[in-house]
Amino acid sequence: MALLFCSTSDNASQWVEELARRLPDLEVRVWPEMGDPADIRMALVWKPPAGLLAGLPNLGLILSLGAGVESLLEDPTLPELPLVRMVSDGLTADMAGYVTLQVLRWHRQLDAYRDQQAAGQWRPLGHRPAPEVGVGILGLGELGQACARTLRSMDYRVMGWSRTPKSVEGVDGFSGADGLTAMLGRSDLLVCLLPLTLETRGILNRRLFAALPKGAVVINAGRGGHLVEEDLAAAVESGHLGGASLDVFVEEPLPAGHPFWRNPRIHVTPHVAAVTHPSRCADHVAAAIRALRTGQPLPSLVDRSRGY
Amino acid sequence: MALLFCSTSDNASQWVEELARRLPDLEVRVWPEMGDPADIRMALVWKPPAGLLAGLPNLGLILSLGAGVESLLEDPTLPELPLVRMVSDGLTADMAGYVTLQVLRWHRQLDAYRDQQAAGQWRPLGHRPAPEVGVGILGLGELGQACARTLRSMDYRVMGWSRTPKSVEGVDGFSGADGLTAMLGRSDLLVCLLPLTLETRGILNRRLFAALPKGAVVINAGRGGHLVEEDLAAAVESGHLGGASLDVFVEEPLPAGHPFWRNPRIHVTPHVAAVTHPSRCADHVAAAIRALRTGQPLPSLVDRSRGY
Ligand SMILES: NC(=O)c1ccc[n+]([C@@H]2O[C@H](COP(=O)([O-])OP(=O)(O)OC[C@H]3O[C@@H](n4cnc5c(N)ncnc54)[C@H](OP(=O)(O)O)[C@@H]3O)[C@@H](O)[C@H]2O)c1
Ligand SMILES: NC(=O)c1ccc[n+]([C@@H]2O[C@H](COP(=O)([O-])OP(=O)(O)OC[C@H]3O[C@@H](n4cnc5c(N)ncnc54)[C@H](OP(=O)(O)O)[C@@H]3O)[C@@H](O)[C@H]2O)c1
Repeated sequence: MALLFCSTSDNASQWVEELARRLPDLEVRVWPEMGDPADIRMALVWKPPAGLLAGLPNLGLILSLGAGVESLLEDPTLPELPLVRMVSDGLTADMAGYVTLQVLRWHRQLDAYRDQQAAGQWRPLGHRPAPEVGVGILGLGELGQACARTLRSMDYRVMGWSRTPKSVEGVDGFSGADGLTAMLGRSDLLVCLLPLTLETRGILNRRLFAALPKGAVVINAGRGGHLVEEDLAAAVESGHLGGASLDVFVEEPLPAGHPFWRNPRIHVTPHVAAVTHPSRCADHVAAAIRALRTGQPLPSLVDRSRGY
Repeated sequence: MALLFCSTSDNASQWVEELARRLPDLEVRVWPEMGDPADIRMALVWKPPAGLLAGLPNLGLILSLGAGVESLLEDPTLPELPLVRMVSDGLTADMAGYVTLQVLRWHRQLDAYRDQQAAGQWRPLGHRPAPEVGVGILGLGELGQACARTLRSMDYRVMGWSRTPKSVEGVDGFSGADGLTAMLGRSDLLVCLLPLTLETRGILNRRLFAALPKGAVVINAGRGGHLVEEDLAAAVESGHLGGASLDVFVEEPLPAGHPFWRNPRIHVTPHVAAVTHPSRCADHVAAAIRALRTGQPLPSLVDRSRGY
């Protein structure tokens, strides 16, 4: 009944320690030192090598170290087993922090004040009261709802778009194609927190940007595949969009020489919006393992037909 | 029964319009066009010329356009009349935005990522989970409590210090000299939202900085007089403090040539943390005027013996 840990971007020894604290009897093996593949019953993974999971004959549960599972689902050899994605207070608080930071940075003109300081200029620039600033959130799930709550606490006019209608206190909910258009027209800032699926790939494109008010800002913390990068560059270049904050990219790391690096209206961060801190995320993994052992319903199960 | 409006930094015509909408029968005169001083019963002011208010024989109420009233109280000719300070959702949301922006900017290393982008560098820097980041707030009044609530929504470890003990959900409350020392020792970020009084002037000094953990960051959105500027410069220079975000200064505008302008670890904004937007603040003024007219208790009265 061993668990296989496999990730090149997470801290294996911290995960081993946090899991041992919660499940002292759990044997954890860290890939590539796997031992007999037949011993592995569960796998805790982020971007495992294609085929790795298919080669584990007794695997019964796949646990994702990330909230988004599109890279797992893209592997045609992925076994038909329950797949649990990452949902944790740690990830959620991190994302609320990233999105709130970017919303405030643009609304309160942090970069303009930084430039004024460099020029020795004391000049209040004025800013609109928060209730007059519309923030549209694409995806009103675990992460989108948390961002909405924090932004509401500062009186922003918050709207959210989801597949199924959602009601969140103080947030105007939208769904469907018409709902999307209605929300976009009022979004001075547009935040993407969708999962990457067949339906959402490339959603941040020229047509969508045209539906935003002039000067709007796009914040993408979903996945690089949501954004048509050339369309964004063109919309910023034309002045229709005021700029963007991007944490995720079609190709990561963002290649040297990519024009986003040198665009002063596009803020690049290296996929750090929400980090899977072991101390904050191990409870979720331990709860899923206990549920598997005791035959309880598994938390945060991915629905493969929806793609998230 | 006219109201005199006097401020060189607020938009008089917007105030006249917002007040007319709420109190159509109120006559508003905009200084310096005052007419007969004997007509003036109320004054809505920000830094009025010394002696102006003392020269209004029938004045019955002074309304401050700012939340802090130390500049009014410093005028020895200020008449002994009820003094109502500014408290409004608009001011409060603005301040929560400024403080949250600065906390996130430091914790999530916005400026380091901006520099990395300029250098074409993709390098996740890591950050501590929010519950391990202590934010101490000096002053747990209208503004401090709002900042605490927003920061709590992102799981920061929030602490607050006030004159009288306060209990705010999820916030560790401190008071007194011992309470201050205890809070400082755990404050990775220290936010000042105190009123400027005899007791709080110069509180952000060398002794206080020494009680903060190494690398701590100071955010001053109270008043310039809270900070001993040379002590801050020295503590940042020595590396004991990680840096500071300052919105207020001993002398405003910050004089040309002041060393803060060119210190890359000190972020300067031109007193814009919270702005008295007329549309968001006129309700409070109208409520105070109605209370005066009907003999109800006045809201947000300043206690002159406390100094705030
Ligand atoms: N940059 C980073 O560091 C980072 C970190 C973690 C996660 N992420 C990204 O954030 C995404 C969201 O995570 P989460 O935990 O919030 O996911 P979640 O709880 O599953 O929420 C997803 C939301 O998107 C909505 N949605 C899905 N497909 C849609 C469609 N076709 N049309 C309209 N709405 C649709 C869902 O609608 P329903 O509510 O109707 O289901 C739901 O509201 C992840 O998938 C990942 O891509 C990024
Ligand atoms: N930068 C800007 O744009 C800007 C804008 C608006 C306001 N401000 C500043 O923010 C300040 C706070 O505004 P507010 O509306 O939050 O005021 P408030 O509601 O009166 O709150 C003041 C807080 O400070 C505490 N305090 C006062 N004297 C103290 C002392 N000697 N020791 C410990 N705690 C003490 C009070 O304790 P108790 O709770 O026990 O009374 C209270 O918690 C204003 O006075 C002004 O200086 C700055």
